[in-house]
Amino acid sequence: MMAEIISGKQIAEKVCEEVQEEVDKLKLHGVTPGLAVVLVGDDAASSVYVAMKERAAKSLSIHSRQLTLPKETTSAEVEGVISGLNADPEIHGILVQLPLPEQIDENVILSCIDPAKDVDGFHPLNVGRLSVGEPNVVAPCTPAGVIELLMRSGFDPAGKHVVVVGRSNIVGRPLATLLTSRGRGGNATVTIAHSRSEELSLITKRADILISAVGRANLIDQSMVKPGAVVIDVGVNRVIDHSIPKGYRLVGDVAFQEVSEVASAITPVPGGVGPMTIAMLLKNTAQLASSSLGFRA
Amino acid sequence: MMAEIISGKQIAEKVCEEVQEEVDKLKLHGVTPGLAVVLVGDDAASSVYVAMKERAAKSLSIHSRQLTLPKETTSAEVEGVISGLNADPEIHGILVQLPLPEQIDENVILSCIDPAKDVDGFHPLNVGRLSVGEPNVVAPCTPAGVIELLMRSGFDPAGKHVVVVGRSNIVGRPLATLLTSRGRGGNATVTIAHSRSEELSLITKRADILISAVGRANLIDQSMVKPGAVVIDVGVNRVIDHSIPKGYRLVGDVAFQEVSEVASAITPVPGGVGPMTIAMLLKNTAQLASSSLGFRA
Repeated sequence: MMAEIISGKQIAEKVCEEVQEEVDKLKLHGVTPGLAVVLVGDDAASSVYVAMKERAAKSLSIHSRQLTLPKETTSAEVEGVISGLNADPEIHGILVQLPLPEQIDENVILSCIDPAKDVDGFHPLNVGRLSVGEPNVVAPCTPAGVIELLMRSGFDPAGKHVVVVGRSNIVGRPLATLLTSRGRGGNATVTIAHSRSEELSLITKRADILISAVGRANLIDQSMVKPGAVVIDVGVNRVIDHSIPKGYRLVGDVAFQEVSEVASAITPVPGGVGPMTIAMLLKNTAQLASSSLGFRA
Repeated sequence: MMAEIISGKQIAEKVCEEVQEEVDKLKLHGVTPGLAVVLVGDDAASSVYVAMKERAAKSLSIHSRQLTLPKETTSAEVEGVISGLNADPEIHGILVQLPLPEQIDENVILSCIDPAKDVDGFHPLNVGRLSVGEPNVVAPCTPAGVIELLMRSGFDPAGKHVVVVGRSNIVGRPLATLLTSRGRGGNATVTIAHSRSEELSLITKRADILISAVGRANLIDQSMVKPGAVVIDVGVNRVIDHSIPKGYRLVGDVAFQEVSEVASAITPVPGGVGPMTIAMLLKNTAQLASSSLGFRA
């Protein structure tokens, strides 16, 4: 029995259709949602992500502006750019592509974004608002995408035991917040495991839903997965492969073939969580544009 | 073999001695740490807590001011009182005793406190700062007290499996944040369980360290505890008892006698987490007073 493949690509297309409707409504009110993406440096993976985000925004007629700054840019210069975007009425969502070059403190930069334009939900005020359960807070795109993926493929986490491997501010922590919330996609029992966890395979094997967000190829093998579990792979790792022209291929954290033999459902990489992240970014952009009008379209 | 009793009272006294030293240093710099406690209404338990906090502050020569407002007070009136305290240079820490009467939205009130005077760490900005790992953020008193209790009694949670029962904004959620952080008292594998968790006893039984913060007497019985586990009881529940003059006694969430027979260590109620909460409140007050000087005493 091979696992059902959860197609993030298909579910993301559905989400994008809904966002398109919201964008169309906003345009009737004279507002074109605007997304600014700030990229500092020339990291190859980041450049690819930023290009994908821009292309996706344009496909929904969301106004998209990319600001690329050289890798030597100072923190003060990035802060200046964000300041301008905070004041710009055409821009409703500001995304700073992470990671930033090492001379720049990520927390300082994320705190400069106007919380009302914080499309990634990484400003500490929004992190806290999400945690205490305030309404109408945009959730970080990847965790929000994972929740949508689960709900729309029929795997409501309520009451289930979900194990999240990874405790990053971008994925693991906000995912635990959403999964333990009282709202849709919440009410799960959640275990957060990580690199310092003792007996990791014992812990992962207890999961009804196992989510890996570490960034290490083949971290999760068949022995770590309970038969019948649902497996969501957030990792994106480059593995050298000289047999293909670009010299590498993308894999997740999960050993896909062998885990497919025991899981009941699994997301592929690519085509799983990745497209959902982009779809939620567009959804968040439309939501912030709606909020700027004082209503939800 | 009966469990070791972890004396929160004794450990809290030690913490208070350290806070006293910090207070004395601050006074040498001309600053007396000031704590304002706002109580709305006449809830009996809240009145007792507030009186205990005030007495503890005075015992360390911390300036303490109690503001008691009638239970019909409007949200705007409470906001006005907080506004005055935000502007008052004698006050370094502001605590609003929870719960508030039902006409007042807790989240609105907590958001009015100047984050630099937020001694409970409940302002969403501070909730977020703690979550993303910013330095020098005060942690909510009860979760911080639980961490101190564990560390000072020799039960470092690093690498261990800690199960937290309860997902409140006051205890369960910030406790999970601290336990999964990279700092002292962190690096644990943490499971958050709650009223909606399926098979709760199966989950609690996996804990190396079990923490209950629900507020239901006898929720945790012997069958739910792994032999040798460390059990921390955050619950405070009134149980009717006509054999004593006041007509009730205080018990925790844990069936103390029977769980003592299987646990390796356990906190009593009263005398466990309670005194630690108050000690951490005083510690946080001193820390905010230090921060207001631009240095750590």
